[in-house]
Amino acid sequence: MSDPFFHPVSGFDLPRFAGIPSFMRLPHLTLDDPRIADVQVGIIGVPWDSGTTNRPGPRHGPRQLRDMSTMIRAQNGATGVRPFEMINCADLGDVPPNPADLMDSMNRITEFYDKVLSAGLIPLTAGGDHLSSLPILRSLGKAAPLGMIHFDSHTDLFKDYFGGTQYTHGTPFRRAVEEGLLDPKRVVQIGIRGSTYDSEDRDFADAVGIRIIPIEEFHARGPEDVMVEAKEIVGTSPTYISYDIDFVDPAFAPGTGTPEVGGPNSYQALQVARMLDGVDIVGADLVEVSPPFDGSGSTAFLGVSIMFEILCNIALNLKG
Amino acid sequence: MSDPFFHPVSGFDLPRFAGIPSFMRLPHLTLDDPRIADVQVGIIGVPWDSGTTNRPGPRHGPRQLRDMSTMIRAQNGATGVRPFEMINCADLGDVPPNPADLMDSMNRITEFYDKVLSAGLIPLTAGGDHLSSLPILRSLGKAAPLGMIHFDSHTDLFKDYFGGTQYTHGTPFRRAVEEGLLDPKRVVQIGIRGSTYDSEDRDFADAVGIRIIPIEEFHARGPEDVMVEAKEIVGTSPTYISYDIDFVDPAFAPGTGTPEVGGPNSYQALQVARMLDGVDIVGADLVEVSPPFDGSGSTAFLGVSIMFEILCNIALNLKG
Amino acid sequence: MSDPFFHPVSGFDLPRFAGIPSFMRLPHLTLDDPRIADVQVGIIGVPWDSGTTNRPGPRHGPRQLRDMSTMIRAQNGATGVRPFEMINCADLGDVPPNPADLMDSMNRITEFYDKVLSAGLIPLTAGGDHLSSLPILRSLGKAAPLGMIHFDSHTDLFKDYFGGTQYTHGTPFRRAVEEGLLDPKRVVQIGIRGSTYDSEDRDFADAVGIRIIPIEEFHARGPEDVMVEAKEIVGTSPTYISYDIDFVDPAFAPGTGTPEVGGPNSYQALQVARMLDGVDIVGADLVEVSPPFDGSGSTAFLGVSIMFEILCNIALNLKG
Amino acid sequence: MSDPFFHPVSGFDLPRFAGIPSFMRLPHLTLDDPRIADVQVGIIGVPWDSGTTNRPGPRHGPRQLRDMSTMIRAQNGATGVRPFEMINCADLGDVPPNPADLMDSMNRITEFYDKVLSAGLIPLTAGGDHLSSLPILRSLGKAAPLGMIHFDSHTDLFKDYFGGTQYTHGTPFRRAVEEGLLDPKRVVQIGIRGSTYDSEDRDFADAVGIRIIPIEEFHARGPEDVMVEAKEIVGTSPTYISYDIDFVDPAFAPGTGTPEVGGPNSYQALQVARMLDGVDIVGADLVEVSPPFDGSGSTAFLGVSIMFEILCNIALNLKG
Amino acid sequence: MSDPFFHPVSGFDLPRFAGIPSFMRLPHLTLDDPRIADVQVGIIGVPWDSGTTNRPGPRHGPRQLRDMSTMIRAQNGATGVRPFEMINCADLGDVPPNPADLMDSMNRITEFYDKVLSAGLIPLTAGGDHLSSLPILRSLGKAAPLGMIHFDSHTDLFKDYFGGTQYTHGTPFRRAVEEGLLDPKRVVQIGIRGSTYDSEDRDFADAVGIRIIPIEEFHARGPEDVMVEAKEIVGTSPTYISYDIDFVDPAFAPGTGTPEVGGPNSYQALQVARMLDGVDIVGADLVEVSPPFDGSGSTAFLGVSIMFEILCNIALNLKG
Amino acid sequence: MSDPFFHPVSGFDLPRFAGIPSFMRLPHLTLDDPRIADVQVGIIGVPWDSGTTNRPGPRHGPRQLRDMSTMIRAQNGATGVRPFEMINCADLGDVPPNPADLMDSMNRITEFYDKVLSAGLIPLTAGGDHLSSLPILRSLGKAAPLGMIHFDSHTDLFKDYFGGTQYTHGTPFRRAVEEGLLDPKRVVQIGIRGSTYDSEDRDFADAVGIRIIPIEEFHARGPEDVMVEAKEIVGTSPTYISYDIDFVDPAFAPGTGTPEVGGPNSYQALQVARMLDGVDIVGADLVEVSPPFDGSGSTAFLGVSIMFEILCNIALNLKG
Repeated sequence: MSDPFFHPVSGFDLPRFAGIPSFMRLPHLTLDDPRIADVQVGIIGVPWDSGTTNRPGPRHGPRQLRDMSTMIRAQNGATGVRPFEMINCADLGDVPPNPADLMDSMNRITEFYDKVLSAGLIPLTAGGDHLSSLPILRSLGKAAPLGMIHFDSHTDLFKDYFGGTQYTHGTPFRRAVEEGLLDPKRVVQIGIRGSTYDSEDRDFADAVGIRIIPIEEFHARGPEDVMVEAKEIVGTSPTYISYDIDFVDPAFAPGTGTPEVGGPNSYQALQVARMLDGVDIVGADLVEVSPPFDGSGSTAFLGVSIMFEILCNIALNLKG
Repeated sequence: MSDPFFHPVSGFDLPRFAGIPSFMRLPHLTLDDPRIADVQVGIIGVPWDSGTTNRPGPRHGPRQLRDMSTMIRAQNGATGVRPFEMINCADLGDVPPNPADLMDSMNRITEFYDKVLSAGLIPLTAGGDHLSSLPILRSLGKAAPLGMIHFDSHTDLFKDYFGGTQYTHGTPFRRAVEEGLLDPKRVVQIGIRGSTYDSEDRDFADAVGIRIIPIEEFHARGPEDVMVEAKEIVGTSPTYISYDIDFVDPAFAPGTGTPEVGGPNSYQALQVARMLDGVDIVGADLVEVSPPFDGSGSTAFLGVSIMFEILCNIALNLKG
Repeated sequence: MSDPFFHPVSGFDLPRFAGIPSFMRLPHLTLDDPRIADVQVGIIGVPWDSGTTNRPGPRHGPRQLRDMSTMIRAQNGATGVRPFEMINCADLGDVPPNPADLMDSMNRITEFYDKVLSAGLIPLTAGGDHLSSLPILRSLGKAAPLGMIHFDSHTDLFKDYFGGTQYTHGTPFRRAVEEGLLDPKRVVQIGIRGSTYDSEDRDFADAVGIRIIPIEEFHARGPEDVMVEAKEIVGTSPTYISYDIDFVDPAFAPGTGTPEVGGPNSYQALQVARMLDGVDIVGADLVEVSPPFDGSGSTAFLGVSIMFEILCNIALNLKG
Repeated sequence: MSDPFFHPVSGFDLPRFAGIPSFMRLPHLTLDDPRIADVQVGIIGVPWDSGTTNRPGPRHGPRQLRDMSTMIRAQNGATGVRPFEMINCADLGDVPPNPADLMDSMNRITEFYDKVLSAGLIPLTAGGDHLSSLPILRSLGKAAPLGMIHFDSHTDLFKDYFGGTQYTHGTPFRRAVEEGLLDPKRVVQIGIRGSTYDSEDRDFADAVGIRIIPIEEFHARGPEDVMVEAKEIVGTSPTYISYDIDFVDPAFAPGTGTPEVGGPNSYQALQVARMLDGVDIVGADLVEVSPPFDGSGSTAFLGVSIMFEILCNIALNLKG
Repeated sequence: MSDPFFHPVSGFDLPRFAGIPSFMRLPHLTLDDPRIADVQVGIIGVPWDSGTTNRPGPRHGPRQLRDMSTMIRAQNGATGVRPFEMINCADLGDVPPNPADLMDSMNRITEFYDKVLSAGLIPLTAGGDHLSSLPILRSLGKAAPLGMIHFDSHTDLFKDYFGGTQYTHGTPFRRAVEEGLLDPKRVVQIGIRGSTYDSEDRDFADAVGIRIIPIEEFHARGPEDVMVEAKEIVGTSPTYISYDIDFVDPAFAPGTGTPEVGGPNSYQALQVARMLDGVDIVGADLVEVSPPFDGSGSTAFLGVSIMFEILCNIALNLKG
Repeated sequence: MSDPFFHPVSGFDLPRFAGIPSFMRLPHLTLDDPRIADVQVGIIGVPWDSGTTNRPGPRHGPRQLRDMSTMIRAQNGATGVRPFEMINCADLGDVPPNPADLMDSMNRITEFYDKVLSAGLIPLTAGGDHLSSLPILRSLGKAAPLGMIHFDSHTDLFKDYFGGTQYTHGTPFRRAVEEGLLDPKRVVQIGIRGSTYDSEDRDFADAVGIRIIPIEEFHARGPEDVMVEAKEIVGTSPTYISYDIDFVDPAFAPGTGTPEVGGPNSYQALQVARMLDGVDIVGADLVEVSPPFDGSGSTAFLGVSIMFEILCNIALNLKG
């Protein structure tokens, strides 16, 4: 049973549109707060988009995700799970990025997650563009390479951009494999689609053993079948979940910088997250929500609904 | 054959963007108009949202629904039904609410529908938030408890809010059952989903015999199968149809106050309304369209398309 | 000199788009926090719009105002005042309203402000619709009737609405005068304009001695001259400031429910707030910001810029 | 005193967001209604934009203007005039255009206004693009050439477009002068600005004696001084008022197809209409409101506010 | 292998948001450019909407389609086809319409396409409203009647509008059949739905042998099965592809003037275009994208994604 | 007289919404085009925003500015100047930035402008965030320090951000003075306002002799008087014009990342640009237009209207 201090404010006590918006109405703790020792899952914002090669905006993601997250109530309607009563969760605030210095920002992120890990917390991240995953993995995958289930319309496995630039939101997992943070044999990418520059990314995946499930296969087999395979690939070892909101069709998630049409609908978007039960999740992120491209917050609301499904699975894991 | 006085203005005579927008371009009659005696179905606006506990706006629903309803033509493309030539329909205008007095507004609504019933009309309502259904049912269910097919992502069966408040858009059907306006054994709720405060609503449903079909079941079985069961539940006795636009996935119906992701698409949204054929519909509502959250009118257009399907089924019933 | 604990987070440390948005990036304290004793000015949200007779939305005002308030930096560019270093300011969170019970909400608000006054704080309120001012004044004006400088396009002095309803956003100051919370001889209303139902409100103003400066006079005389008169009217006794954002022309402040064209521009909107220097401000509010009608946040940004000007004047007063 | 039948519905009886939106909540009468004989001013929609050479949309103008017009109350806040109690006004509905046949539409409009004139009504028109003024003037100016006060950022005096096309929204007044519908010596155009193709329009104006007051002169002299001259130019003979919403700066009126920056603000926009007192207004139009470019309705609200000012002046004239 | 001159600018050389937006970043050639002789497929804009009977805007379609088309990369993600390296493609610019003269515009369009055909190019058109297809077919179908696969929610087979008007976006294919430009036995229309005026269009289709596949059949059978039949109908003879964006459900393609709910999703929208492989495509259009109704560009991005699929099939054909 | 090759396409030949949007419908020439030798003014896009510390988006500026620039016609309505017939102007395309490498991008920009200068052209730049001005000045100010008239709400004179970062859009002119690219004694900054971190920027200005005219002074003295002083400060020596769109009040220019309320209106925004006549303009930029924050294009239209005024003054200079 969790500590009532960590229970979200109920919408019956304070209407859901009211109050300062922390993630899911959880208490906000800084890393130097003594109560950090009691926290099991920390939700963290990474308001950063310096890796974006196309339309910017994910730096505004964490704030809009927090705003819409106050619409999340205590209980999972599909499974009955009540995560906030099973484990202690908290909003750890945002990593302070340096918007004008990409390398400095990457270091700041890794340092922040190092502290989170030292404190023994599982981090659930609200991005930020997809390059955010790299400095996070530099912390989480330091000890040993992780498996990864990766939902996206892009592989983010490219070698470089613009004539040699190594760090963009199209390259994080190439770097992570090169740096030994991910075990490519235990990596699966689901939902890949859209026009591409070339096949350089897929050739790399093939070479190192990353399994790509393109959208055509996803639609043909259905989410259940695909997720069975995905879970077999990562097995029971520590696994990272990286969920790019552009995995979902842009009609359901217009607020993102590099949309690709023809994706899953919102029900499927939830299903795949719900089917992560049993996976040994050591960290997860939801990235590429770009508020300037969806002022309505619909994309962010879908994003936090996905985060809530992941959180429920982490809670189930921790409760054993 | 209906009276030509009640035929909508054709888009070939006056383009669909032109003219003062009454519902489906029907004639507007007030309740004291002598021609009321000829009307069989009255479309009524309830511009009211005082029961809203979250994001407001449905008070603007009737006007936007009227605006978009001028896009509806004379004939149902799927079934060939031409309702306006089968029965006399009219726009009865809006119930005048008191936006600053909830109880006064509920009384005003019930009084209005009492007059509509006295005149022998079947009311088709454009809400308004979902609390609107309660004062309507106080009129329609006065004689005997009704059955109900209820499309929604929420049960609206909660006991109270904010420490004892009885009347909100989350409680109307709890009240209606308590007041004997609905026969819970003949009530089915379809599409329920989203995070929840707790299971108090579902426990009540179980206790009184309301059948809840959650969205997971809906997606697994499909609309046809679900609707067969729904029609068995209500049988051939008088039945109310309550259609909350948030039944539909927010990508198709963003203009609502309490969206829940993972819902049906627009084709399914029409299908379930079309499959109401044969149900003894004594009244119906389409509620929770909130224009401030969808200025484009897409949600309202879907809403009136659903209302048109329901109207076609009422017309088929009345023509026998 | 203020306590560094109460200094806002600098945009140089954490970019202004990052972090959980409290008002002006101040620390958030609840009323039962022991540090409350050190606070001099408390910024409070009243997320409530049950008094709205037209387009709703101000219940969302405090959150959007907080969001945009992170764009406010430490120093007033025009006057050089650095309020957060002069006095201890804090975000006191939101009063929890009951969206479905107007009278209950009014009581909750008054109770909250009673506690704020007991703690010796000056409250700066972010509304909420204009009815919010009444329960606030029931606390602030309890001891003795206050003077008021009121910026608005409407007098909000009507007797009642909808056939006898006493409490709407068009009646708060009629009630406040009747209840002895305001001294009408020390009340001035600036910017009044737009079409009106009748002259019943102005007749009341004339009868009790409230000075109305309509927009035509404002534009003819200019802000400086008008504010000199306004300050003479309220004199040196305790005075409340009530600033309805619809005072400003809707091109500058579209996000409001009852706009009236032909108002002041944003520079004048700031000027009149800046010219409140020397007034004995015992409380102030900025009301009627309605985010659903301005998703961009421009209105809210203007709103918090006005709040900052008022805060600077309070800081000057307190520093003497 | 006007017939109470013609009094608008009060916002105290039916909230302003409720009800089927006729112009200013007036009764809707078709031209063959027997009560037409009692009407003195008819408000008419011309939902047509086939003359638009740039961004389309004014065909949607009348509906949005009606929608926003329900925000207009009974009394002019600045002058105290209560037009609806002085004269009988009605909404005459929309002229049915043929969107795919420009010449057919022009004939339909002229025929409609011929009937309006036969019935002895003064028409107040809600456009429609500016070409609408030509078929209207063919009716109103048939007996004798009219004077005109024309507010606009463009002269609309061009000879032709696209290699000889005579009828566009850039040519109506060239045609009207050529056809003897306007007396160019009694025509004044106020607010002209923006980049131009060439000076062909201004050369024509000079040649026939039309007075152009460019925006630079308007800003330098101010609205009062300019309007004194304008009224001298038209004198006491019958005069048409043509008000293109793009006269106003696009910050105040973004919903129009050919905006030009640097225009008057909304207060000045109202002032010039209010200063039409004493002019013998035989007809007036407000044109070029294009809802697709301002879904918020702000432009339309300014538009109807201007129409209300004009209507008040017509009422003053008729009451003598 | 194509000439490198005709290769699009890569996003690795110039980011995709940068540069003057030609279609798919191809070189822009006018019809009198000597390099025209090398071009195999010309992409052409028809910025025209004079045939629109409802909400206007497709005149803005080509520009927004160009803008979003810079998001299309070199390679088809699903099939691996790299069309720009297989054949020489170019942007031929826009046909200059006369927005105020429908008949003149139709002639201008036919003349433009006559030149395109003389030069031996296959035209891929970005509309414009659906009437655009008629003047194009007058060029392409001049030699012999064509087959056509037509994706739409409307048949566009009506006899006339507004009492005899022959040329609107609801009549082009009635005219085309009458003029012998299409062989009705080789015409199939897919996705038809929505309310209708009457069955006059479907009666005509039946009489001349056009096959209509309504949306109910499409959803029941699925895209694959339907496309097999469609390809049998057109066979191996020359065929035109006409793709109205309102074929797709408005949640995926809101930017159009006459939406009908209940349509295919974006994946199906791509699938049907991809399954055109093997069809002898002699020309194709994508019409009815109306930017004023989707400023976000989502509809246009789906539109160009569909155009890219069609282009890939043309490339496969030309390469044999 | 200019070469007709360089005349923009007329809206009478091709409607203004049609065609591929180059700046002001001028011919597009790359730097290696032989006709570059004939060009006198080159309009250049810098689609880059890596210096942005707050809300991003100016990387999309050049494209939207081009789009809206097709609304600019041949002749200045206020002055009668026809710049495109006086001098040869061309669109030089966009500098290709590296969105993920700030330093690389700065080098690319400087290299591009070095070539422009070598070719003897005067560059008129469409940004881009304000850091863009620094790499441009590194080219233009290389030979000798320039004077500058700078319109902005911020000084952009800060020392560094985020603990030492030298290159952001808040520091370009500090760097430019330090690098000897600007002569601070000949620099004037107009319109400065908004809350500030501290006075470090103004202290620097005072120390080196930069003249700051804050908004309060601007409003008090008026644009004419201020511009007389500004022109005295820069004198007759070579001068750069840097125009940040956030100089203008956000009601007129909402599409920008760091708005400050209380600024000039659009007429004043044009006036100050028009009053640059006689200044020896060696280069100019219009920066910080951020399309994601104004999808309507209003801000961009104001931006290009300002660019057109500057261009007219350059044309007057070159024609002597």
